Amino acid sequence: MEKLVTIDIIGTGNVGTHLYRAFEGKADVNNVPSRTLDSLRTDSDIYLISVSDDAIRKVSGKVSDYLTHVCKSILDWKNDNAIIAHTSGTTPLSVISDLYPATGVFYPLQTFSKGVELNYSEIPLFIEGASADVAHRLTEVAKLITEKVYDADSEKRKTLHIASVFACNFANHLWALSEEFLAGSGLSFDMLRPLIMETCRKAGRISPYDGQTGPAVRHDMKTIQSHETALAANSDPELLEIYKLLTDSIIKRHSAK
Amino acid sequence: MEKLVTIDIIGTGNVGTHLYRAFEGKADVNNVPSRTLDSLRTDSDIYLISVSDDAIRKVSGKVSDYLTHVCKSILDWKNDNAIIAHTSGTTPLSVISDLYPATGVFYPLQTFSKGVELNYSEIPLFIEGASADVAHRLTEVAKLITEKVYDADSEKRKTLHIASVFACNFANHLWALSEEFLAGSGLSFDMLRPLIMETCRKAGRISPYDGQTGPAVRHDMKTIQSHETALAANSDPELLEIYKLLTDSIIKRHSAK
Repeated sequence: MEKLVTIDIIGTGNVGTHLYRAFEGKADVNNVPSRTLDSLRTDSDIYLISVSDDAIRKVSGKVSDYLTHVCKSILDWKNDNAIIAHTSGTTPLSVISDLYPATGVFYPLQTFSKGVELNYSEIPLFIEGASADVAHRLTEVAKLITEKVYDADSEKRKTLHIASVFACNFANHLWALSEEFLAGSGLSFDMLRPLIMETCRKAGRISPYDGQTGPAVRHDMKTIQSHETALAANSDPELLEIYKLLTDSIIKRHSAK
Repeated sequence: MEKLVTIDIIGTGNVGTHLYRAFEGKADVNNVPSRTLDSLRTDSDIYLISVSDDAIRKVSGKVSDYLTHVCKSILDWKNDNAIIAHTSGTTPLSVISDLYPATGVFYPLQTFSKGVELNYSEIPLFIEGASADVAHRLTEVAKLITEKVYDADSEKRKTLHIASVFACNFANHLWALSEEFLAGSGLSFDMLRPLIMETCRKAGRISPYDGQTGPAVRHDMKTIQSHETALAANSDPELLEIYKLLTDSIIKRHSAK
């Protein structure tokens, strides 16, 4: 039987908990609380630092110190091959690369909530390594849980993060605005949910550019004008501003067809 | 055996085709091309006008003329109880209410694509009638295909339509913008799809206000500043404008917590 790769996940928040679950049965995995580092193993192949962005450098430093100083002096530590990698999309590798010889990034692009089951094999994982060897080994480990493994340096992760702010955080905020707008007329967001779900399913199949619907893509200026008049009467001028900006943006992209 | 309600659906586009399918087996339903009105029945209980907004008045007028003049003179027509209703969210009832005694609106809030199967029982249907009797009878017919039947006058339908522009058309456009933004860095929209799908699933369960994530709701000004700097370097100034407007909108709504 092939020896399982040994992984210590430091951090017991959403990402740490889900990564632990994703690796269960596929690696010899151990979840370690970041405050105390209780139960940290000295002989792991990979140490994944799943803590808040602000704490990544500090916790990585503690793990590195533990491995390279404490272990080295007490146990004559020889695990020179171990990797320390953080799991953050927004933190550059440079934040930890001076702390330890073999560092990397192991970034799952997903929104994790406690108690929500996920199909890990569908989650894309983005890998960066301080060396080609680290990148290669992190890629092999990533392939244990998903087929969607990509190289992404800090610049590409930033681009992905910005795109996900538009695609997820901002889309969700538009849903919140529509919930707010409906509530003002005694209507419920539940009425919109089936339409939203179908819009999402469509974006799962085809390019959202090709799937665009609504008055703007039809250049239906009569409806747009009527909506703008209604929104101008709304107590919050921001809704009209957002309507105009996004309508213009759609018209601009769909006029040269 | 109870007699089935008889429905003629005029218009063979997306909405007409899907309404026909939704009623199959539940009503005596007939789908009629709007150009020729071939196969229009003189004895139906309901005539649903599913044509483009611009054609609603003209087609409704032709159906009304056929029923009240042609049929009356030739067949001594006595179907005084028949209803003519359009299926548009954006068209007021007043566009057809002067043409015929019993008019209404039968508006399914969903995005229909040919060839895409839908669970009709989840689609909300919004009803308006020129009289309480018409509204009541349209409601009974709507309940044949869905439990989600609501009263909505033209003003409420307009509010729903504006909300659905934000929730669906604009959300989809944000996905198109993120696809465009990723393409500029050689990244694929496929990488974002699992995250988008999970964001959608979350909005299907909880209030989008409560489910808001991202740098804006965390008031993470360092990340926001870094994204704005990156977007300022983008060739299209619109992306930065949208980022700023939606970020401000999120911060404003989540600061008073």
